[in-house]
Amino acid sequence: MQGRYDTLKERLAQVHDLRRAQEILFWDQTVMMPPAGGPVRSAQLTTLDRIAHELFVDDEVGRMLEELRPYEESLPYDSDEASLIRTSRRDWEKSRRVPAELAAEMVGAAAEAHDVWAKARAENDFALFLPHLERAVELKRRYIECFDDYDEPYDVLLDDYEPGMRTAEVRAVFDDLKRELVPLIAEVGSVEGDDAFMGGPWPVDAQHAFSLQVIEKFGFDPRYMRLDVTVHPFAASSATHDIRLTTRYSADDITSLFTAMHECGHGLYEHGVSTRLERTPLCHGVSSALHESQSRMWENTVGRSRPFWNHFYPAMQAAFPEALGDVDQERWYRAINRVKPSYIRVDADEATYNLHIILRFELEQEIFAGTVALKDLPEAWNARFEEYLGIPIPNDSVGVLQDVHWSGGGFGYFPTYSLGNIISVQIWERVLADLPDLPEQFEAGEFGQLHEWLRTNLYSLGRKFTPQETLERVVGGPIDAQPYVRYLKDKLTALAPA
Amino acid sequence: MQGRYDTLKERLAQVHDLRRAQEILFWDQTVMMPPAGGPVRSAQLTTLDRIAHELFVDDEVGRMLEELRPYEESLPYDSDEASLIRTSRRDWEKSRRVPAELAAEMVGAAAEAHDVWAKARAENDFALFLPHLERAVELKRRYIECFDDYDEPYDVLLDDYEPGMRTAEVRAVFDDLKRELVPLIAEVGSVEGDDAFMGGPWPVDAQHAFSLQVIEKFGFDPRYMRLDVTVHPFAASSATHDIRLTTRYSADDITSLFTAMHECGHGLYEHGVSTRLERTPLCHGVSSALHESQSRMWENTVGRSRPFWNHFYPAMQAAFPEALGDVDQERWYRAINRVKPSYIRVDADEATYNLHIILRFELEQEIFAGTVALKDLPEAWNARFEEYLGIPIPNDSVGVLQDVHWSGGGFGYFPTYSLGNIISVQIWERVLADLPDLPEQFEAGEFGQLHEWLRTNLYSLGRKFTPQETLERVVGGPIDAQPYVRYLKDKLTALAPA
Repeated sequence: MQGRYDTLKERLAQVHDLRRAQEILFWDQTVMMPPAGGPVRSAQLTTLDRIAHELFVDDEVGRMLEELRPYEESLPYDSDEASLIRTSRRDWEKSRRVPAELAAEMVGAAAEAHDVWAKARAENDFALFLPHLERAVELKRRYIECFDDYDEPYDVLLDDYEPGMRTAEVRAVFDDLKRELVPLIAEVGSVEGDDAFMGGPWPVDAQHAFSLQVIEKFGFDPRYMRLDVTVHPFAASSATHDIRLTTRYSADDITSLFTAMHECGHGLYEHGVSTRLERTPLCHGVSSALHESQSRMWENTVGRSRPFWNHFYPAMQAAFPEALGDVDQERWYRAINRVKPSYIRVDADEATYNLHIILRFELEQEIFAGTVALKDLPEAWNARFEEYLGIPIPNDSVGVLQDVHWSGGGFGYFPTYSLGNIISVQIWERVLADLPDLPEQFEAGEFGQLHEWLRTNLYSLGRKFTPQETLERVVGGPIDAQPYVRYLKDKLTALAPA
Repeated sequence: MQGRYDTLKERLAQVHDLRRAQEILFWDQTVMMPPAGGPVRSAQLTTLDRIAHELFVDDEVGRMLEELRPYEESLPYDSDEASLIRTSRRDWEKSRRVPAELAAEMVGAAAEAHDVWAKARAENDFALFLPHLERAVELKRRYIECFDDYDEPYDVLLDDYEPGMRTAEVRAVFDDLKRELVPLIAEVGSVEGDDAFMGGPWPVDAQHAFSLQVIEKFGFDPRYMRLDVTVHPFAASSATHDIRLTTRYSADDITSLFTAMHECGHGLYEHGVSTRLERTPLCHGVSSALHESQSRMWENTVGRSRPFWNHFYPAMQAAFPEALGDVDQERWYRAINRVKPSYIRVDADEATYNLHIILRFELEQEIFAGTVALKDLPEAWNARFEEYLGIPIPNDSVGVLQDVHWSGGGFGYFPTYSLGNIISVQIWERVLADLPDLPEQFEAGEFGQLHEWLRTNLYSLGRKFTPQETLERVVGGPIDAQPYVRYLKDKLTALAPA
């Protein structure tokens, strides 16, 4: 049995090597590659993707997984070996359901739609994008038909990013969140302040140096990690000991600091996976929401907190004397936590962000339930946006056309952003119960115990368990919006006028 | 037939994509990767290598190549299609001859031997390295046994780097070269000069800026190319429009300038391959010697010439005022062309370099003819070195242990360096016949016509023809040492006292 297990593991290692190669080639493409290299790089990525897919969906892998059932059952559920067999069987069964032709058609349609979407957004022309949106939805309907184990069709879409999560559960959690957030935002969203200093100047070199200074305190270590510049920041990795963070700088904007903390959260998660899982399909964060919980925790729960700034503000002020010389810590703290409804999701504050997500989640469900026609999507978007955020949408470029996701068929992805916010505070409450003096540690510039707790309790697990099992292990229960609601209420009402 | 051809081409494109992915992952490893990423990266490269090899040596590829014989014969010899089939058949037949186990054993032995070699060199301990050298030679003997189409065993080794070249031909050319070079070097090698200024300082930023200034004149274009820093400079590429050059800087050494020109030569060759050959196995320079002819031409024939410095010296002096403020152009020109026997091949001047190579070529032949015992290699090395270069070897670290090649089983590679020198001047004479005013162009800072000539007549061909056919097309005849000998004699005797 050990021999068969080793054979399976070696096959999975090869697939994983190809996947990691794709990840680094993508990183290279967006961070390092000379601009004219694009077309050939796309072809290379397609080749690696196809070969990895074929190596994995092979009948032989299914046979090995079947033969290893008794071995799996003879081992503890928690063991690396049983977890590898169990998780790979789930991955294999899922990957077998989608015909290669459909998968290829989806990739091709996404590539075509991307440029049209970019043009439509630039020209505020939803009608231009509509046929591509229709095709993306049609292909996703065919994709859904490949599966049968769901309560409602949207479950299938969600499962690609949050395996095992059901739409009904997300709906319940989001309804809970929405009920509390809409009035809270209406209340605190009207608090004004003089944030003009946020326009800078923020010298780019100082942004880079200060970002590194902060994330090195979090656990960024150049022996294992890089921080580079790109257009749309992301984190990638080749191995637990080879993590690539990216960010972007603009002299009139200090967002980069929070971007660095955000991507560092993703990077610390990937870096913290047990090295015993290296070169296996378990060597990754477990789901989009759990991953996002970590980027959000380091960016928001830590990086927008008073204890954090009690430590860092003097250094920050010294690093940016022109912008912050006359700005006291309280004014800075209020500015970076300002709640203000705005059109663009990626620029939204910590609180309103979730209403952007809930809006998309609801519309995606209606699209696949057929209760909204795609041609009517702009109207549906605009009406609901005003209902939730209180401001009218002036044009589709800053409304329904703003995000890239739908052009690529990425339905089901959006909810994981807010699920991440919710989970981040569930975990945060657990950490605080174990380490009640964390705020004092932050004030002293110490973040190592938080990192260590997260590594021990979450990061090291990788994909050994399902997202639900993982969350259960870390916080002792299922997803629950209440801790996040309490956190936002406490933080934001403290900033409202008495 | 067109359908079968397209199927073959698609298969070869996939293999090529994997090979290019390896190339970029290797570039990433040596230029970008955080230091701890090494072990997993090695595993990824091994996986890509194995999959590419398996995809190519497959019986199915052989069947397709066989079926396409009539198609190939119906097409002009020069056509891209006939060339792809013909060259791939040669590659396939060769790759089929080596059992996978032997190939894997060679890779494993090379990895083991590398670290031992590095230790042996550091500690001047040939005996430590000897068992690994013995194993490398033994494996290469088994490798030679996989083939039968050769005049002498060394032909097989040479063929890996210079396909189709025979040992007898190299021997004749090198004997020719040696006969002329040994007395020439004895004569001009005694010319002294005050080159103390070559110790710098050479500020690293100015080196980088000046290197770019020079190679941009040669054709380096940031839309298609990058220049980065590494420990052992090389050139790599992902596509004709994605070329990666590397160099290194040291404040007490201006070698980087010639390194940049050298690697740029390699890069311009890869960049100049016809884009019609993109994503095929023809999309590469044709052989090590032809490739080296281009790095040497741009580095030496161009970059160490009087017309080049008539243009660039004023800017060079302005860029490095501390080192060159008091140095006139003639003194600089003599210093960078100084002939001076020294121990280390990679630091050797343009002329003595070839004697380092001839020494290795002769010893490699004797090793595989069994006329020198490996344990006696240091003595054989030292005796011959003194005979050719006139100076005794003080220890093996700067003698027989200096190069990495043998630890990796790279027998047969060395001669291509000098073959490259020889070919570079054969081509140079052809270019000058077509463009007699090239020296005046260089003096005016114009290098575009040289680049264009090389692209049209050499670079664009890629691997469509054999190295011999390629050389025949470019210079109208076979390899010949005489133009190179004339070039060195003219250049060097002009620098000797009257």
